[in-house]
Amino acid sequence: MARTYKDAGVDIDAGDALVERIKPLAARTRIPGVIADVGGFAGLFAVPAGMREPVLVSGTDGVGTKLEIAFAADRHETIGQDLVAMSANDVATTGARPLFFLDYYATGRLDVDRAERVMRGIAEGCRLAGCALLGGETAELPGFYARGEYDLAGFVVGIVERSEILDGRSVVPGDALIGIASTGLHANGYSLARRVLLQDAGLALDSRPESLEKPLVDVLLEPTRIYVRAIEVARAHGLAAAAHITGGGLPGNIPRVLPEGLGARIDPRRWKRHAIFDLVQRLGPVEEDEMRCTFNLGLGLVMVVPARRADGCVDALGAAGWTAARVGEVVEVVGERVTFEA
Amino acid sequence: MARTYKDAGVDIDAGDALVERIKPLAARTRIPGVIADVGGFAGLFAVPAGMREPVLVSGTDGVGTKLEIAFAADRHETIGQDLVAMSANDVATTGARPLFFLDYYATGRLDVDRAERVMRGIAEGCRLAGCALLGGETAELPGFYARGEYDLAGFVVGIVERSEILDGRSVVPGDALIGIASTGLHANGYSLARRVLLQDAGLALDSRPESLEKPLVDVLLEPTRIYVRAIEVARAHGLAAAAHITGGGLPGNIPRVLPEGLGARIDPRRWKRHAIFDLVQRLGPVEEDEMRCTFNLGLGLVMVVPARRADGCVDALGAAGWTAARVGEVVEVVGERVTFEA
Repeated sequence: MARTYKDAGVDIDAGDALVERIKPLAARTRIPGVIADVGGFAGLFAVPAGMREPVLVSGTDGVGTKLEIAFAADRHETIGQDLVAMSANDVATTGARPLFFLDYYATGRLDVDRAERVMRGIAEGCRLAGCALLGGETAELPGFYARGEYDLAGFVVGIVERSEILDGRSVVPGDALIGIASTGLHANGYSLARRVLLQDAGLALDSRPESLEKPLVDVLLEPTRIYVRAIEVARAHGLAAAAHITGGGLPGNIPRVLPEGLGARIDPRRWKRHAIFDLVQRLGPVEEDEMRCTFNLGLGLVMVVPARRADGCVDALGAAGWTAARVGEVVEVVGERVTFEA
Repeated sequence: MARTYKDAGVDIDAGDALVERIKPLAARTRIPGVIADVGGFAGLFAVPAGMREPVLVSGTDGVGTKLEIAFAADRHETIGQDLVAMSANDVATTGARPLFFLDYYATGRLDVDRAERVMRGIAEGCRLAGCALLGGETAELPGFYARGEYDLAGFVVGIVERSEILDGRSVVPGDALIGIASTGLHANGYSLARRVLLQDAGLALDSRPESLEKPLVDVLLEPTRIYVRAIEVARAHGLAAAAHITGGGLPGNIPRVLPEGLGARIDPRRWKRHAIFDLVQRLGPVEEDEMRCTFNLGLGLVMVVPARRADGCVDALGAAGWTAARVGEVVEVVGERVTFEA
């Protein structure tokens, strides 16, 4: 019998069926500038008119082993929001407005229904980030991924006026650090959290440890917060720099946006640490330093504003619905760039 | 003993070491417009000045199970060129000039040396496509990928003057189709080729079947050709549309760039079909229709130009070093959009 591509595990028809299901999802994320829809060789987007020196800002990221939780729970509706959040937040920290998003979805055998559920979360993430879902690639790689599993990569392009890039140049000692609450682990540190909670401690995903307000699976799948609009709010209050708190935690990410010689002094009493972090730390046990360098510990975004504008910025963020607090200040440093008050 | 992120399989230090190795590779792909280097939260690129209505064009793709050949042969130097080619060629078919590239590299356990070899191929691909390697993400996902394996996704952003977008609108019946030689399978159809050659026929990768000019592994790892500069050449000769021949072959890709009601009549005697395609077909056996809908069969790019300009275009392409030929013409169709002369 003659061999076909489908015999070899690649179903072009399933891919085409998925494209048809994505089209209406993508259409709902359409914003001015979108020229071509999903389905052609490439996505087209008009550079916004009237900018003096437009600069493109792009970032890419995945969601790490948070995917393992989605697989184990067979819940795929929100992991797409995590995917958009990871790269849209990165792009927004430069002061750029996200314009469009593309996804890469790779799996061993394409399950059109499951992929559509993932894409719904991606479309919701795009809506929250204010960008268009402009295109993507669905790759069927027989034998690469375990049955029912997949990997995701996301890619965002944003734009900013060159003179308005947040490069941290104007940051000075004494500036205030404003933190915005995360929704939990976001999409970082899952290999450690899974190891401690599920493997070592043997907790079931549907269990509800006493300290948590809802079942473990719900806490672990809580989608990553998208901070694009919070950064917009802070821009009107003297925003000088913004750090997306991902792998590396506060010590790893805040220095990335501060000038040489400056660091951060942080007061951990100024914000609420989610119970999930304490649970991981206690069950590990995990040293406090390791916790700080692995997890966001409750702050998903840290912004720098002049001290005299900090209260106004926190108020404006609060009025816009964000849980924000002054969590520390910029200091001159010689050694450790991020220190924590005892 | 206290648990650490490294215990759980994620080595932040290895990731940092890789970033340091990528920096000089990325620096060598720098073109005017690049503002920030690899390593920040995002990559920055200035929109070229002096355009009237600049349009961004973006595409994403992976390299499919061609990766399995790289793994089996432990050869990782050229798969990165395939990665850039897949999305840069897509973007270039719209008439856009690729500006920058980002990669997503996902693996179970980061091997810095292997990842660097992959990145060298990516940098070479960027050089051939004329774009900058602006950023990327290296994801360590313990347990996701088999030992030593990885997946890759690539993203390209290009730019084109709105009035110069190749949307196929000017294509008319009688226009000539100009094909440009592929280097072999490129990065499509590997699941079928591997099934037939390695699994069913049991050929060893280092064997040299009589019909091939070099060992099978060399033929299967031949990097995908990057057609960006060929499309530039053809623009000076009335180029109306360009199709990148990927999954779906000539019948699947040519119609994507032709107006409704128009199709292609192709004369397969006009170009050389690589011996690897005949080997797959004979050993499968694989029906001719299935071959045509799965592989590029020797043409990696098909362009449409007015008939009276076809000879000049072919000559100019030849003078620039491309193997190009007139392979068919645009016709009015009611049923099948792509037909082959007997």
